[in-house]
Amino acid sequence: MSRRLLVGVIGAGSIDVAGAALAEEIGRRLAESGAVLVCGGLGGVMAAACRGAAGAGGETIGLLPGSDADSANNDVSIALPTGLGHARNVMIAQVSRVLIAVEGEYGTLSEIAIGLKLGKPVVVFGRWADLTGVHRVETAAEAVELALRLAVESRPADLNLS
Amino acid sequence: MSRRLLVGVIGAGSIDVAGAALAEEIGRRLAESGAVLVCGGLGGVMAAACRGAAGAGGETIGLLPGSDADSANNDVSIALPTGLGHARNVMIAQVSRVLIAVEGEYGTLSEIAIGLKLGKPVVVFGRWADLTGVHRVETAAEAVELALRLAVESRPADLNLS
Amino acid sequence: MSRRLLVGVIGAGSIDVAGAALAEEIGRRLAESGAVLVCGGLGGVMAAACRGAAGAGGETIGLLPGSDADSANNDVSIALPTGLGHARNVMIAQVSRVLIAVEGEYGTLSEIAIGLKLGKPVVVFGRWADLTGVHRVETAAEAVELALRLAVESRPADLNLS
Amino acid sequence: MSRRLLVGVIGAGSIDVAGAALAEEIGRRLAESGAVLVCGGLGGVMAAACRGAAGAGGETIGLLPGSDADSANNDVSIALPTGLGHARNVMIAQVSRVLIAVEGEYGTLSEIAIGLKLGKPVVVFGRWADLTGVHRVETAAEAVELALRLAVESRPADLNLS
Repeated sequence: MSRRLLVGVIGAGSIDVAGAALAEEIGRRLAESGAVLVCGGLGGVMAAACRGAAGAGGETIGLLPGSDADSANNDVSIALPTGLGHARNVMIAQVSRVLIAVEGEYGTLSEIAIGLKLGKPVVVFGRWADLTGVHRVETAAEAVELALRLAVESRPADLNLS
Repeated sequence: MSRRLLVGVIGAGSIDVAGAALAEEIGRRLAESGAVLVCGGLGGVMAAACRGAAGAGGETIGLLPGSDADSANNDVSIALPTGLGHARNVMIAQVSRVLIAVEGEYGTLSEIAIGLKLGKPVVVFGRWADLTGVHRVETAAEAVELALRLAVESRPADLNLS
Repeated sequence: MSRRLLVGVIGAGSIDVAGAALAEEIGRRLAESGAVLVCGGLGGVMAAACRGAAGAGGETIGLLPGSDADSANNDVSIALPTGLGHARNVMIAQVSRVLIAVEGEYGTLSEIAIGLKLGKPVVVFGRWADLTGVHRVETAAEAVELALRLAVESRPADLNLS
Repeated sequence: MSRRLLVGVIGAGSIDVAGAALAEEIGRRLAESGAVLVCGGLGGVMAAACRGAAGAGGETIGLLPGSDADSANNDVSIALPTGLGHARNVMIAQVSRVLIAVEGEYGTLSEIAIGLKLGKPVVVFGRWADLTGVHRVETAAEAVELALRLAVESRPADLNLS
C-alpha cells in the first residue's frame, strides 16, 4: 500500500504578490516532499499553492463548492465538484492530515476551527495566528517542515513521502 | 403564508449553572417572540436553550450530527438526524436567519465563522465576543432583542413573529 | 417531551392536476394526524403537499438545495436552505421516519433508495412502485394510514400524534 | 494543465469471486487508460476495483462515509474521510465524469439515480441494468471502453488520458 499524505492549504481567495509567492513556495515544497495538496480549488492562495505544486509535478486536489469541475483553477489535477457549498470547508479539514493557513477571512477561520475541533495540527501565517491551539510560523520552509513533522508524529506508519 | 423566523443558538456542549440559566432564558424569550429555535440538538447550551423554549411552548429544531433521532435532548421537538457529522455545523449557520453564541469552543467558532461568511448577524456572549464582525451582548434580554431586530432589518417581510 | 413525527413526502417537481390533488390530500391527512411534513420545499408534489398540510394547520419543513430561504414554496413554514445541492436528498431520507413517494424521476428514486438503505419504510404511488422493498398504495388515505402505522411500529414510544 | 479524468466505480460491498474478478479488471483497465478511479473506499466491488487499479500503477480515490482514513481499503491511495455518512454517495456521483456500476444494492441504486439526475453517463452490469437511461454492458473491456468514450464525448478537451 502507498497511502498518500494529504496536506490542506487554506487561505484568502484573493492575495497580493507576496502572499502568492508564499503560497506557491508552500505548494512546491509539499509536492517535492511527495505530499498531495488539498485545497478549495479556486483562486488566491488556492491557485498559487496549486501552481507551485503542479510545477513540481505534484498532485493537487480541489474540493470545489459548486457542481462544475471547470470552475477549478488550471493547476488542480483532481477537481472534485462537491456541490456542497460552504460545507466543502468542513470536507477540507476532514480529509487533510494537517492544515496550513495563509491569511484568509471568515471562510479560512471556519476551516481552522473545524481542523482544531477534529484535533488536526493547524499551521498558520498572519491573520488567525494568535488563535489558541494553532502553530505560528513565518516562512514557507518552516511551515512545510512543521506540517510534515506534525502529520508524521500524529500517524507515523504507512505514509508515502517518497 | 406564515414563514417562521429561525434563530440559531450555538455554544458549549457542557456549561456551568450560570451558563445554563442564560441559555434557558434565551430559549424562553425566543419562544415567547414566536421564533423557532435552531440548535445542534445535544447537551449544554443546546439542551438549556431547548428547555427554555419548550417550557414557553416553542418549537425547537435539533440538527444532529449523527443518524439517530434519539440522540437529541428531550426538549427538541423536531429532531433532524442529518448524519453529516461536523458539516451539520454549517447547516446550523445556513438555515438560521441570525445566530446567538453562548461561550463554546472550536465547534462554536466554526459556526460563528460560517455565519459571518454568509453575512448573517451573529450575537455573542463571552468567548469569541472580540471577533471582528460580531455583536457583543451582556444579557439574555439584550441578545434576543438585538437578534430579532437584526433579523427583521435584514429581511422585514413575511416573518411570523406572532 | 413531545417529539414530533416527521414524514417525508417526495416526488416530481412538476405534476398534473390529479397528482396535485393526491399530494395535497396526503399533506392534509398528515397534518390532521399531527405529523410534520418534510419535503424538498420546491414545486410540484412538494408544493401541493405543503398546501394541503398548511391548510390543515400543520407545520411544513422544506429542505432546500440552495442557500435562499425565499426559494421555498409559499406553504413551507420552516424553510431550511441547506446549500447542500443534491445531498439534501439524502437529508430528506435521513430525517424522515417514513417516506411517501408520489411519482417522480431520478431525484425521487435516489431518495427512495437512500430510505430503503437506511431501513425506513417507503410508501409508493405510481412510478417506482415495483421496486423491491417498497409498500405500494393506491389512495392518499391508504398511504397516510400505512405510513403512520409503519412509523409507529418501527418506533412506538414518545411520538406526538396529537 | 493536465486535469485528470475521474471515473466512479460503484457496487456491492461484498461480492463473489466472479464479481471481484470483474471489478478488478475494470480497475486495471481504467488505470491503464490514465483515468483516476473514484469509489466509496471500502470492501467488495470497491476493494477489487482499487486492487486492479493500484496493481496497474493508478491513483485511487476513496470517498469514505466516516471520519477515519484508516477505514479505507489497502489499495486506496487517496483516502478522503468525508464524515458525511450516506451523503458521500452523492459526492461520488458529483465528482465522477462517468459511473460504472457492478451489481450492488440500494446504496448503489442511489448513486446511479443521482448520476442520472446529474446527466452523467452510467454504465451498468447486472442488477439495475434495466433502469431507463443507463448503458448496459457485459464485459469489463466493454464497460471501460464505453465509459471513456462517453466521458470524452461529453467533455472532449483537456482530459489527460495519458
